[in-house]
Amino acid sequence: MMGKLLVVGSMAFDSVRTPFGEASDVLGGSATYFSTAASFFTGVELIAVVGEDFPEQHVDFLRSRGIDLEGLERRKGKTFRWKGEYSYQLNEAQTLETHLNVLETFRPHIPDQYRTPQMLFLGNIDPELQLDVLEKVERPRIVACDTMNFWIEGKREALWRTLEKVDILVINDGEARALGEDSNLVQVAKRILSRGPKNLIIKRGEYGVLMFNEKHTFGAPALPLEQVKDPTGAGDTFAGGFMGHLASTGDYSNEGLRRAIIFGSVMASFTVEEFSLDRLRHLDKRQIEDRYREFRRLTHFEDI
Amino acid sequence: MMGKLLVVGSMAFDSVRTPFGEASDVLGGSATYFSTAASFFTGVELIAVVGEDFPEQHVDFLRSRGIDLEGLERRKGKTFRWKGEYSYQLNEAQTLETHLNVLETFRPHIPDQYRTPQMLFLGNIDPELQLDVLEKVERPRIVACDTMNFWIEGKREALWRTLEKVDILVINDGEARALGEDSNLVQVAKRILSRGPKNLIIKRGEYGVLMFNEKHTFGAPALPLEQVKDPTGAGDTFAGGFMGHLASTGDYSNEGLRRAIIFGSVMASFTVEEFSLDRLRHLDKRQIEDRYREFRRLTHFEDI
Repeated sequence: MMGKLLVVGSMAFDSVRTPFGEASDVLGGSATYFSTAASFFTGVELIAVVGEDFPEQHVDFLRSRGIDLEGLERRKGKTFRWKGEYSYQLNEAQTLETHLNVLETFRPHIPDQYRTPQMLFLGNIDPELQLDVLEKVERPRIVACDTMNFWIEGKREALWRTLEKVDILVINDGEARALGEDSNLVQVAKRILSRGPKNLIIKRGEYGVLMFNEKHTFGAPALPLEQVKDPTGAGDTFAGGFMGHLASTGDYSNEGLRRAIIFGSVMASFTVEEFSLDRLRHLDKRQIEDRYREFRRLTHFEDI
Repeated sequence: MMGKLLVVGSMAFDSVRTPFGEASDVLGGSATYFSTAASFFTGVELIAVVGEDFPEQHVDFLRSRGIDLEGLERRKGKTFRWKGEYSYQLNEAQTLETHLNVLETFRPHIPDQYRTPQMLFLGNIDPELQLDVLEKVERPRIVACDTMNFWIEGKREALWRTLEKVDILVINDGEARALGEDSNLVQVAKRILSRGPKNLIIKRGEYGVLMFNEKHTFGAPALPLEQVKDPTGAGDTFAGGFMGHLASTGDYSNEGLRRAIIFGSVMASFTVEEFSLDRLRHLDKRQIEDRYREFRRLTHFEDI
C-alpha cells in the first residue's frame, strides 16, 4: 500500500426520486461517495464540511471504512441538501432543490498532517477553492479534479487556472463539450490536453468511459446491469475507485491508468444498484475483483 | 471464403444536412450500405428495387464491389427518397421527408440462384415481407434482421412472428427498448431472447454496441473519431461488416461473433467520416485491418 489519498468535496443529504423508488435525506455528497469507494483500495483523508444536523451514524460509517476524518469540519447551521429526480432516461438528473447551507461559506482547512498527500482529488467545488487547496499542500504525485457546468459557465478562467496544475480531469461528456467548446470529443480532448491536464477522463454514465492522453485513447463500456435504482454518486464513486486503485498500486503507466478506470467503473456499477451508498455498505474485495473479471469478459475480443 | 450472403433491403436517394455539410440526392439505402460494407469480406447477393431515375453509375459502383445484382429490380416510377438532418447531437436523425415511391409496392422477388444462401440479412422492411423472403429460401445457416419503430408500433405481432425464426436481431437502443417494453436493456434482452432470436445486437451510435445471448454479454465502445460528417447508414454498414465477416469465416462461436461485431464497428467508423458511401469508395482491406487493431488498442486492459 502506497501513501495517502486526500479528497476535498461535499457531504450532503440527498433526496432522490427515480422510476424505481425514492429516498429522503439520505447520505450523499461527492466526498462521501469518493472516499467510501476509494477506501476499498487505500487510505483516504477527507476534507469537507457538515452542519449540526449531521448524525453521528454517518460519521461512524465513514470511520468504519478507515477514512481519516481529521479534516471533517462541523459548523453551525445545516448540512448541504440536494433534491433531484430521474426519469427512465437515467443518465441525467433533474435538480429540484439545492440548499448549499454550510457549503456556501466553506473554506477548506487543511490539517497539518494532510499536507503531504501522495494523491489529491479536488471534488466539484469552486475552482478558486480547488486551486487554494492545491497550493497549500506539497505537490502530490497525482492531482485529479472534477467540475460542473456551473463553474465552466460562471468561472471559466479560474477553472482553467486550476486545470493548468492538474494531471487528470474527470468530467462527464456534457461538461467536456462545454469546456472544450466543441461537439466532437476528440477535438475537445485536444483542446483540454493542450491547456494543462495530461489525462482527460470522460464519464458517459450507462455508456461507459473514455480516457484521452497524448499517446492513447481508452474506451470501456459500462456493465449492463439487471437493476439500476439510483445513479446519484456514480461519477464520484467512479473517481474514488479510480484514484483509490491508482494510489494502492502507484502504477501511473498507461496500463495502470486503464486498470484503475475499470476499477472505477466496477465501483460505480455497484453504487447505482441501490439508493445512496447502500450497496457500498455491504461490499467486499472479492465481489469487486469478481466484477473486474466480469468487465474483462464483457469487453474481450481476440486479435486478427 | 464460405458461401453467399443474401441481403434484402432498400436502395435510396438521400438528402442529408449535418452541422458539417450537406449532400443532395446521393446514394443511400439499407441494402446499399449493407452490401457495400459486406463486399469487403464476402460475396453478396442483393434484393432491392429502384426506379427509372436510378443512374447506371450507382449500379456500376455496386458491381465494381463484386455484388451480385441479379435481384436488383428496376421498376417504373421513382426511387425511394429520404431527406433528413442531424444536429450536433449526431446520434439521431430528424426525418424531413420520406417518399417511398417504388418501395411502396415492393414485393421481393427471389431469383432461383439466390435460394440457398449461407446467410441472410433481412433489412428494415415490412416484417411480413421479411418473413415471406425467409420462407422462400432454404433455411440459411444464419438469419439476421433489422427493424424500426414504425414496424414495432404498427405491426408488432407480425414482427414477433418474423423474429421467432431469426437468429440475430440487430437494432438500436431506442428500438430495443420499444420492442422489449422496458427501459433496462438487460431486461429487454431477456424478453427478446425468450421469443426467438438467439442473439440481440444493440447499436448505440457513438456509444458503441452491445450483444446479448443466453451465455454472454459483449460490449464495445465506438472509436472516437476526429471527424464525423454524416452518420447516415452507419447501422446498415455495421450490419454489413458484421455479417460479411461472419460469412467469410463461418465461425459463429462467441469469439467469432465478437470479432465480427468489431469488424462491423470498423466499417461503420469509416462510413460516418464522409457523406453517403464516399468513404467506402476508397477503402482497402489493410485500412480495415489497421482499424480493427485500433479497436484492440482502444479497449485493451490487463487482467488483475
